[in-house]
Amino acid sequence: MGRDVLILTEADLRRTVPLDRAAVDATERAFVALAGKGVVMPPVMSMQIEAANGEVDVKAAYLPGFDGFAVKISPGFFDNPAQGLPSLSGMMVLLSAQTGLVEAVFLDRGYLTELRTAAAGAVAARALAPSLVETVCVMGTGAQARLQVMAAHLVRPFARVLVWGRDAERAAGCAADIATALGVEARAEPDAASAVAAAQIVITATPARAPILRAEWLHPGMHVTAMGSDQDGKGELAPEILSRALYIADRVSQAEVMGELRGAMRAGVWTGGRPPELGDVLTGRHPGRTSPAQITVCDLTGTGAQDTAIATHALALARRAGAGLRLDA
Amino acid sequence: MGRDVLILTEADLRRTVPLDRAAVDATERAFVALAGKGVVMPPVMSMQIEAANGEVDVKAAYLPGFDGFAVKISPGFFDNPAQGLPSLSGMMVLLSAQTGLVEAVFLDRGYLTELRTAAAGAVAARALAPSLVETVCVMGTGAQARLQVMAAHLVRPFARVLVWGRDAERAAGCAADIATALGVEARAEPDAASAVAAAQIVITATPARAPILRAEWLHPGMHVTAMGSDQDGKGELAPEILSRALYIADRVSQAEVMGELRGAMRAGVWTGGRPPELGDVLTGRHPGRTSPAQITVCDLTGTGAQDTAIATHALALARRAGAGLRLDA
Repeated sequence: MGRDVLILTEADLRRTVPLDRAAVDATERAFVALAGKGVVMPPVMSMQIEAANGEVDVKAAYLPGFDGFAVKISPGFFDNPAQGLPSLSGMMVLLSAQTGLVEAVFLDRGYLTELRTAAAGAVAARALAPSLVETVCVMGTGAQARLQVMAAHLVRPFARVLVWGRDAERAAGCAADIATALGVEARAEPDAASAVAAAQIVITATPARAPILRAEWLHPGMHVTAMGSDQDGKGELAPEILSRALYIADRVSQAEVMGELRGAMRAGVWTGGRPPELGDVLTGRHPGRTSPAQITVCDLTGTGAQDTAIATHALALARRAGAGLRLDA
Repeated sequence: MGRDVLILTEADLRRTVPLDRAAVDATERAFVALAGKGVVMPPVMSMQIEAANGEVDVKAAYLPGFDGFAVKISPGFFDNPAQGLPSLSGMMVLLSAQTGLVEAVFLDRGYLTELRTAAAGAVAARALAPSLVETVCVMGTGAQARLQVMAAHLVRPFARVLVWGRDAERAAGCAADIATALGVEARAEPDAASAVAAAQIVITATPARAPILRAEWLHPGMHVTAMGSDQDGKGELAPEILSRALYIADRVSQAEVMGELRGAMRAGVWTGGRPPELGDVLTGRHPGRTSPAQITVCDLTGTGAQDTAIATHALALARRAGAGLRLDA
């Protein structure tokens, strides 16, 4: 019957939906769908709740070929840590694309977002990074820095990770966690230029509002995944980088208002017209990397399409595992 | 604790949250808040899913003074009835305005929307209708037509209801249901002009795309609640009505794109500048009805503020009744 609603908690989802190749493949399908016709992805609905130093984003996307579409509520309340609560939380809902009925509620507290964001980094690396990667540099020391590195390892099994962060202790902790999780060499590198110089893949995963990756650090053949900029005012890359590399957006309409593209356009250094999207590369509409020496940059602002893809994937896995609570709602 | 999530099904909510004066009062608080400062109510997020003859609206509103804010997902899939499923469904989420954490999930399938929409009609009638109402005319024969009449009866205990609808059988069924529910005289009236002439309150509750209430039917002292127009292309009132009555919008920014105001502006008959909102009348910023002979019109497009108010009300009642399922999510 289709009138039941499956309720899945964060614990259910962490048990059932790992960061693995299947999650990367599911996320890739989102970008492929985005390159096709019939996608309905409205602009992000944003609310600023100043009284509580909070913001809420709502994202949604209908993708042809998917049985359901997700609506995601992502709050970020930045005074929460002082109360022992996480800043980021939220949930997703999957509705039937045929009937609009609610199929599943994911009380994931942001876990599926973490997953699909990391998985998008792997999709970008698989499509754009050089085929041989020995060293990855990650700029940032948070949960997403760790997950991005783990996701990249699924598609480019590198041997070494250099972690750069403003806080040496946090950088060392991040490196230790990565070493344990992946069984690779991982260490903090306090000099960002050295860390970048040694890496074939550079991942930026910070909430930076001023560039942390400089244009003079670019070197032939490298791939950059910039995933930190998801709203106006954020930005991790020096604007010149976009004009000196093959720049790919996850979604142009988002990148020009909340991604790295926005900064480059404002700085007047973007003269490339409409850049290609990741889905264009995946579907062959754009050739992507065409030489080993080319420098590629993928700008990930985070799309509702990824939410629809990961929610669909999670529901399939949960059903198979018999996870969650089925409510006759 | 605050980390639990309360899950309430439609059955829980129908049992726990009736259409009564408390629901009307809760809804009134939404409009009062809308007239104040600090409200964050982004434009409705809309998706058209043409492949399934469906549409989805997402509404949200933060209201100062409310502990939580609601995000509502409202799908309408108009091929559903052929499969024995309702066109309208959906759900609401209430999040803490202090932390952004999810407090309650209302798997209400649209019940709370029906409730807060009917309650808004009662708020409008209480604020604007003449104090003595003997007869109500309702144009429309659906669920909301019934609920609007029941809600109006809470604030103006009239003795007689005339139901006009295009389908005589449905009109008779609607009248019979109202008579049973309220214990008042209720009958179908096939002549719309006669029905309107006899009534002190006229409620339009249809999905009409061409006017069903004509300007020449207006008569001194009457109050009109028009609740059917909630998107561009809909409209129930002849445009001239707005310039010949005291016109009040639930929210001007919505009424001018999806309410009756839109039609009057396009027809060029609206010359009144920015109309007052219902909250302006409730807070005394606008005097509202100033004479027994005045004609008043309230245009209800449906606001996220009402969702926040009804969800807050529903959560309080559900907690008191011990209803629903508490998940350690």
